[in-house]
Amino acid sequence: MSAAITSCGAAPVILTGDRPTGPLHLGHFVGSLRNRVRYQDTCRQYIMIADAQALTDNMDDTRKVNLNVIEMALDYLAVGIDPKKSTIFIQSQVPELAELAFYYLNLVSVARLERNPTVKEEIRQRGFERDIPAGFLTYPASQAADITAFKASLVPVGEDQIPMIEQSNEIVRRFNRITGRDILVEAKALVPEMGRLPGIDGKAKMSKSLRNMIHLHASPDEIRAAVKQIYTDPLHLRIEDPGHLEGNVAFIYLDAFDPDVAGLAELKAQYVRGGLADSIVKARLEACLQEALAPIRTRRQQFEKARGDVLQLLQEGTAQARETAAQTIAEVKAALGLRYF
Amino acid sequence: MSAAITSCGAAPVILTGDRPTGPLHLGHFVGSLRNRVRYQDTCRQYIMIADAQALTDNMDDTRKVNLNVIEMALDYLAVGIDPKKSTIFIQSQVPELAELAFYYLNLVSVARLERNPTVKEEIRQRGFERDIPAGFLTYPASQAADITAFKASLVPVGEDQIPMIEQSNEIVRRFNRITGRDILVEAKALVPEMGRLPGIDGKAKMSKSLRNMIHLHASPDEIRAAVKQIYTDPLHLRIEDPGHLEGNVAFIYLDAFDPDVAGLAELKAQYVRGGLADSIVKARLEACLQEALAPIRTRRQQFEKARGDVLQLLQEGTAQARETAAQTIAEVKAALGLRYF
Repeated sequence: MSAAITSCGAAPVILTGDRPTGPLHLGHFVGSLRNRVRYQDTCRQYIMIADAQALTDNMDDTRKVNLNVIEMALDYLAVGIDPKKSTIFIQSQVPELAELAFYYLNLVSVARLERNPTVKEEIRQRGFERDIPAGFLTYPASQAADITAFKASLVPVGEDQIPMIEQSNEIVRRFNRITGRDILVEAKALVPEMGRLPGIDGKAKMSKSLRNMIHLHASPDEIRAAVKQIYTDPLHLRIEDPGHLEGNVAFIYLDAFDPDVAGLAELKAQYVRGGLADSIVKARLEACLQEALAPIRTRRQQFEKARGDVLQLLQEGTAQARETAAQTIAEVKAALGLRYF
Repeated sequence: MSAAITSCGAAPVILTGDRPTGPLHLGHFVGSLRNRVRYQDTCRQYIMIADAQALTDNMDDTRKVNLNVIEMALDYLAVGIDPKKSTIFIQSQVPELAELAFYYLNLVSVARLERNPTVKEEIRQRGFERDIPAGFLTYPASQAADITAFKASLVPVGEDQIPMIEQSNEIVRRFNRITGRDILVEAKALVPEMGRLPGIDGKAKMSKSLRNMIHLHASPDEIRAAVKQIYTDPLHLRIEDPGHLEGNVAFIYLDAFDPDVAGLAELKAQYVRGGLADSIVKARLEACLQEALAPIRTRRQQFEKARGDVLQLLQEGTAQARETAAQTIAEVKAALGLRYF
């Protein structure tokens, strides 16, 4: 199911995006944002701010979703996503996506949706049990719409999201079989080499409720404070003790941010042998993070001063995305016999 | 839940329609079409040809749905629905309805949809069991979109469809509560006085598979043949025997079509006493049906010769419906904070 981006032939189409429910953090940066900056040179990349999807479990706080849309765009621009190369758009402003999802609901059974491992896990995490909003159960159909509207062939996702791509491909195959036309395109999951970044406390995931994130727009002081708190090796009590790398967040972050690979390998060896203080490791990590985040913060501050321009960029990207999605829904409806005039 | 149309104050809005899956028959005429002709003078009436909804269980025969859209419009015009008074439109060509349904999916739980008695019964009838298409389970959200897009306050439905209106109203209340605005309007079920017309064989429902219908466009010969077959009173073996009215389809149809109410009452009395041949009753019924259907057939033939004009009418009605639905979805999205530009 997964594909390497290096196999890019004739500019594959990528669909990716985020739910605007809070500020982006280092986990997003390492897991996806950084890759998007790379992909945009060789691929046709659509980046969706998934405000409509965010509503599936935020109907009681729609204002949060609204406010985070522009914040997310600011983060995208700050990390170097170039709206001239990538199409950044707002999901709710491309109504063709909802329309497409509506038809896809006829191509997937309730039982199949209930078996979707990603949906099952997210239902568990959110504690919905029997009171799942219908929109939450059916969101794989909505994701299939987002992917296929742009005829995306690659979708960057974490390992845990692969079942969503499989479900989308099932819908694609069913549609193409029923209509006897190859209108929709199957997508491949593009799983990043670097897995999910743990929280600073060593927990598997950065999460708002655990307060274990470093935000992309963190100030130098916030970065410093966060690095101080970072979980390392609880058995590494004295400097001369041998240290462990597994689960050691400081080294995991260094793997993601330290450009000096050889120097880092040496540091690791020394840590494992014993005789290297956590404070040295953390100082090196802090330097790396400060260096990585400083230009992002600066660019963000510049864009923050020009929110009107950012909205303008979003409007242009959305118009562009809408044009493509409108073409697809027209093809889909024609194939379903829903054309009269 | 039900409301009398006579209480029409300031031109209530009606939303009604049919799934274009086959020709309309006498059951439709008595149960709804005839009423629409009446309503259009005092109400703002939207009549939807529900092609998109018909797909929920016709994905394997989309051509049938397509072909029946124009046939349905011909039937509407033939019975006297006036496109200058009523807005006739094609559901799939008003994409705002699918978009609205998409948001409503977040306002209803899976458990609530599964409890909907109408959905339960239709799932049973169609033999879906666990393999229900998701679009079938979620179609109450779609119906809520159809109703609320036009801010309909009255929806003519059979008794068995009342739970659908209740579900729609729940969505309306939830939306208005969450957004704190009275944007959406609750609807009342408008249950016709004359209940469902049985098939000519006495079965509760006219249905294609039972071949027990009289089509609206039936020829004089077809009407004659159908009346000959009509189920009357199996105990009424000899003319002089007392006859029974209950379940006697000939009399049920006479109730629906004989304008001479007093004459009919006398006929019934004679039948119950004994001494009235079924053939006399049937001759009277045939005369009534021929008289009712002849002008419909004639008008249909005229419209059939002008299919281009009919399409034009549909296009105009659809544009009109779209304008109203677009206004509603704009209000809904603004209330959900989905407005940026």
